[in-house]
Amino acid sequence: MSVGLTRVLEPAGVLPQAAWRLDARPEIAADEVRIRVERLNLDAASFRQLAEKHGGDGAAVRAEVLEIIGTRGKMQNPVTGSGGMLIGVVDEVGPSSPLPVKPGDRVATLVSLTLTPLAITDGLAGWDGLSEQVPAAGHAILFGRSVVAVLPDDLPPELALAVFDVCGAPALTDRVVRRYTVVGQEAVDAPDALVGYHFETPTVAVLGGAGKSGSLALAAARLAGARTVGIVVSAGERDLLEQAGLADHVAIADARDPVQVSEAVSGALGGPATVTVVCVDVPGCEHGAILATAPGGTVIFFSMATSFAAAALGAEGLAADVTMLIGNGYVPGHAAFALDVLRKTPAVRALYEQRIAGH
Amino acid sequence: MSVGLTRVLEPAGVLPQAAWRLDARPEIAADEVRIRVERLNLDAASFRQLAEKHGGDGAAVRAEVLEIIGTRGKMQNPVTGSGGMLIGVVDEVGPSSPLPVKPGDRVATLVSLTLTPLAITDGLAGWDGLSEQVPAAGHAILFGRSVVAVLPDDLPPELALAVFDVCGAPALTDRVVRRYTVVGQEAVDAPDALVGYHFETPTVAVLGGAGKSGSLALAAARLAGARTVGIVVSAGERDLLEQAGLADHVAIADARDPVQVSEAVSGALGGPATVTVVCVDVPGCEHGAILATAPGGTVIFFSMATSFAAAALGAEGLAADVTMLIGNGYVPGHAAFALDVLRKTPAVRALYEQRIAGH
Repeated sequence: MSVGLTRVLEPAGVLPQAAWRLDARPEIAADEVRIRVERLNLDAASFRQLAEKHGGDGAAVRAEVLEIIGTRGKMQNPVTGSGGMLIGVVDEVGPSSPLPVKPGDRVATLVSLTLTPLAITDGLAGWDGLSEQVPAAGHAILFGRSVVAVLPDDLPPELALAVFDVCGAPALTDRVVRRYTVVGQEAVDAPDALVGYHFETPTVAVLGGAGKSGSLALAAARLAGARTVGIVVSAGERDLLEQAGLADHVAIADARDPVQVSEAVSGALGGPATVTVVCVDVPGCEHGAILATAPGGTVIFFSMATSFAAAALGAEGLAADVTMLIGNGYVPGHAAFALDVLRKTPAVRALYEQRIAGH
Repeated sequence: MSVGLTRVLEPAGVLPQAAWRLDARPEIAADEVRIRVERLNLDAASFRQLAEKHGGDGAAVRAEVLEIIGTRGKMQNPVTGSGGMLIGVVDEVGPSSPLPVKPGDRVATLVSLTLTPLAITDGLAGWDGLSEQVPAAGHAILFGRSVVAVLPDDLPPELALAVFDVCGAPALTDRVVRRYTVVGQEAVDAPDALVGYHFETPTVAVLGGAGKSGSLALAAARLAGARTVGIVVSAGERDLLEQAGLADHVAIADARDPVQVSEAVSGALGGPATVTVVCVDVPGCEHGAILATAPGGTVIFFSMATSFAAAALGAEGLAADVTMLIGNGYVPGHAAFALDVLRKTPAVRALYEQRIAGH
């Protein structure tokens, strides 16, 4: 399946994300999809940089975004390197596209604008340049290997988009927890990580359990059959999460303090966690997560603040036989799965609606 | 099992590696082990810093190392933060120690000196301060959770130490490959990563296949039943690896070029790899490794130059359903396993002996 190499104009031979300029022609290849664009959501860092550069002059921001897209064939801020995502309606689907969409579907792209061929036809006339939300007309191209989600009929788009933003976390949490709950299979025959270890009901600790990805991970873990604890940073978050009833236990700890985290998890679960999910976006959470996890268990790092070296060296120094996963934001079916978790768990939906209303 | 919290003197409550000062008293707790020290191997970065600071004055370097150990109760260079490892003879084993050693065993510690309580009793009289190899008398303490390897009788110590240095790579490669070769088990019942995917004979690509960890990973992958390709950077390395006969295929590619890597792997194996092992210590190898790996496959990152964000965002951008592992340097039994791979694979041993002789 194509990753869009034929759309790269310069420099030749790199992936679309690394390219300076993409070919945004509307004609699609057999495995491509063309979207009629309705709205761009600029990445927050990118919009902030542009707004500051132009001192809040919306017309100048709009002109620069238009110039970037016109020059590069994609919306990638040259300073921040970041993009965003878009919403639109599927226009044409190539005969060999593997994407689960059909013409007329209203969709959100879950791959970055930094690798999405894009052309604007309305001069962004409907945008004042003062917000990350950019009404737009034009077209965008999705490759064979891409990620796109159909916006659901039963949920407001802002709610669906907020869920899509972190939808890898519940899907991967579900997948990993189910490794430890395989039915009818001896632990010794099970995946590597389980050899020599036995887990009855798996337990899951989520660091940052009250946040967007954390609350969905907690809900997914429980739906997958785990006993759970949410670790939060403050009494306010603890009360919020306890009232929501999302987790079997809630405990307060500073995620950067390995001893605190490990004691909070063990205190709540009666021992270390089978699976620890890190959803706290601050540096220094690696050792606590490792220490809080049982031998043969798994740590899933979803925080972009994770240090590869701190995790690798930390596990070695602690002689911790834990599997450490780089949280891959892509799991097949993750968007639909995350919406389903939200529908099945009214408390998660309530947390999300509160958060959206708060803005 | 203890991680040594009772040995931390200040600041209280942190892990031994983060501590300023450890308690190096010789009396051991029930799960500790005391080692009679014979030699310290200082970390290269630490020794270089000390040598440069003192302008090559060996006596001054020796005095500072003595002072660090005397003050901190461990050998951790305050500037570089790094330590090293040590060789010694097991003196006393606490009744509840889980470590596989007995008094009289000659051992190497595989956890860092930065977390190992240490006391020196000979004033380092046998050391001129001019080399990282420090003859020493004194004692060191290993916690319940620690890693130690018995030096084998049949191999020179330098060879064993060189293997220990990277012994996590072959052990984890073996473990992951065997996930894909589980006998008598349907793929659909197998671990998560395999759901929906079928792998006949697994294939393994090792980026940096001619190096220390790479050559052991290649040998371990083949012993685990995989068809293998070693990806190397130059014709010289290619010839070396081909003559050694360690891999089924050898191909040249720049590991930082995703398209080159992916084409080299697919060209050699007839398709993407089931498992890709990254042993190249340069930044920017994440996307190539992801692109070279089959859906449902696994990437193991052993390079400390790995960027967590580049891996996480890269997999998402490529819609790559691959499991990404942070290469944990600790796998139970890894030291003995790696020595065994070396013994079973004379070509690896020859490569290691060449490398040692070259110094």
